[in-house]
Amino acid sequence: MPVTGLNLVPFVSVDHMMKLVHSIGVERVLTDLATAIEADFRRWPLFDKTPRVASHSPEGVIELMPTSDGEVYGFKYVNGHPKNMKDGLQTVTAFGLLADVATGYPVLLSEMTLLTALRTAAASAMAASHLAPKGATTMALIGNGAQAEFQALAFKAICGVTEIRMYDIDPVATDKCALNLKGCGLKLISCTSPQQAIEGAGIITTVTADKQLATILTDNMVGSGVHINAVGGDCPGKTELHRDILLRSQIFVEYSPQTRIEGEIQQLPPDYPVTELWQVISGTAPGRTAARQITLFDSVGFAIEDFSALRYVLDRVQGTGFFQNLDMIADPDDPRDLYGMLMRGKP
Amino acid sequence: MPVTGLNLVPFVSVDHMMKLVHSIGVERVLTDLATAIEADFRRWPLFDKTPRVASHSPEGVIELMPTSDGEVYGFKYVNGHPKNMKDGLQTVTAFGLLADVATGYPVLLSEMTLLTALRTAAASAMAASHLAPKGATTMALIGNGAQAEFQALAFKAICGVTEIRMYDIDPVATDKCALNLKGCGLKLISCTSPQQAIEGAGIITTVTADKQLATILTDNMVGSGVHINAVGGDCPGKTELHRDILLRSQIFVEYSPQTRIEGEIQQLPPDYPVTELWQVISGTAPGRTAARQITLFDSVGFAIEDFSALRYVLDRVQGTGFFQNLDMIADPDDPRDLYGMLMRGKP
Repeated sequence: MPVTGLNLVPFVSVDHMMKLVHSIGVERVLTDLATAIEADFRRWPLFDKTPRVASHSPEGVIELMPTSDGEVYGFKYVNGHPKNMKDGLQTVTAFGLLADVATGYPVLLSEMTLLTALRTAAASAMAASHLAPKGATTMALIGNGAQAEFQALAFKAICGVTEIRMYDIDPVATDKCALNLKGCGLKLISCTSPQQAIEGAGIITTVTADKQLATILTDNMVGSGVHINAVGGDCPGKTELHRDILLRSQIFVEYSPQTRIEGEIQQLPPDYPVTELWQVISGTAPGRTAARQITLFDSVGFAIEDFSALRYVLDRVQGTGFFQNLDMIADPDDPRDLYGMLMRGKP
Repeated sequence: MPVTGLNLVPFVSVDHMMKLVHSIGVERVLTDLATAIEADFRRWPLFDKTPRVASHSPEGVIELMPTSDGEVYGFKYVNGHPKNMKDGLQTVTAFGLLADVATGYPVLLSEMTLLTALRTAAASAMAASHLAPKGATTMALIGNGAQAEFQALAFKAICGVTEIRMYDIDPVATDKCALNLKGCGLKLISCTSPQQAIEGAGIITTVTADKQLATILTDNMVGSGVHINAVGGDCPGKTELHRDILLRSQIFVEYSPQTRIEGEIQQLPPDYPVTELWQVISGTAPGRTAARQITLFDSVGFAIEDFSALRYVLDRVQGTGFFQNLDMIADPDDPRDLYGMLMRGKP
């Protein structure tokens, strides 16, 4: 770990994160994050893994997502409040921290609302690069909210997708998405139904936000051979796909103990066979085995993805002005003299 | 919850925390914190409670301690690295956060190294105010490190202790403690053995830091009728008291599922009877029932104490200059237009 001032923790604000991303380029950041996440998934068994620690309320959920590779510790704070949107607030906001395992001292604090959007899209596209049918260049994008453009650009940059077929129950969201993506080199089709969106799509991304058991896709809509990237179903009682689709699919997850609680597979028996994505990446389990197979990445987001993203940010902010130092850790000259430090601080 | 700017989170740095404490007065802060913690313990059943989420390494532990009362969510990040001291680092550093349960938006970020020292001492003295023998004015203080002065002042301010008998395996620590407490109105006795320290003491506070099974007190040293405030044993494999003392004591804990893992009672069978302190405070269980009884507060620190302390800080920094606003939460005008916000932020 780079050593910072003992009491100072570098903090990457939202403004600094935007500047950092623009200094590198959005698509390059997405590609770099996919590479970083894939590299950490390859060494998966090294990590401390635990399902996230969730505090549920009627309005939403607040979660802590910790992990460690034995040298670096990281965690993310993230909320999910679907009703926030109608009050003009973000459904998902987040921040995260890295610390040095050897000392317990924090080494980075960062906004993660933007970074989560970037890493989620990067992880989706990285998974699809292992699972999607060869040569798929058309993606249906169902749900055109805050995560939509990031998904589109990640699949363009990482999987070579060239056409995005957008659908949202609110056409205003689709218009927003189309406007934002205009001129980025993707062919954009605004659709008026999910059926229309998935026509000819080799990849189907669902990224909707209702906190309820929804059925964005029904079984008869999904043909053989596609890859489904199911991003929106990510907490208990919140799913997007009809159960029958799951039963026809080869299912891939991040961390099965967490996904069985939070993902689409909460609809299936607890022993239903699924493959963890790291097994495919490390070559210990097969990915897609037939052209007609439906592959499903039941993505809920896992702590290691945030860890990879935070490490990337820590690495890339070095030598830039895109952070400020926070006086966050009391660090008296004599570590046993915390009280003396307080007294010497008397105005 | 007081509403802050949507994207801005007030941050109380170490420097600001020192200024806040001095503006109120250390003993007053300790008394206020004891009152706040006692009030929250009185409504204990309302809180979401979970043992802290610990990530252990050979060098120490990093923990997350979340809780919620249904309206406010709080968590603390805290490490415990006993070896840090020899490298000139703090054994324990911490920071914490409060968020609005209804929206998931953070409303306070604060240093908690100092605040944890203050709240730990306040909780100890608050417990003793319910459990210690009537009229006890002498306290043995075994372990004269970073927590020692805070304990001494809390017991002075909250329990009316007038004499502190200090002992540490390192006399330099005792000298530091004596120097820091000079002139604060306590009679200070530097002792050369634990035996000498506990002579005539109605309250015995142990606050040592080794991450190992230690025996600071043996059974034959402890007479009847005392109150033991055991603060230092607070993680698996780290205890301070001989098991025989526990067997002679009436044992009080914060949250038994956590204390059975981390406290002195990890030495006892998992069904050994203990009383949770909130039961005493709310009148649903007896505290001390006889003058000759040994009462033991097996303190490991619980999330609700941090919650109370953070709420106190949030309340007291309002209208002061003792915080800075951090641009921590991405907050686009249209909550679904996170990508548009990023693009508009292009330099």
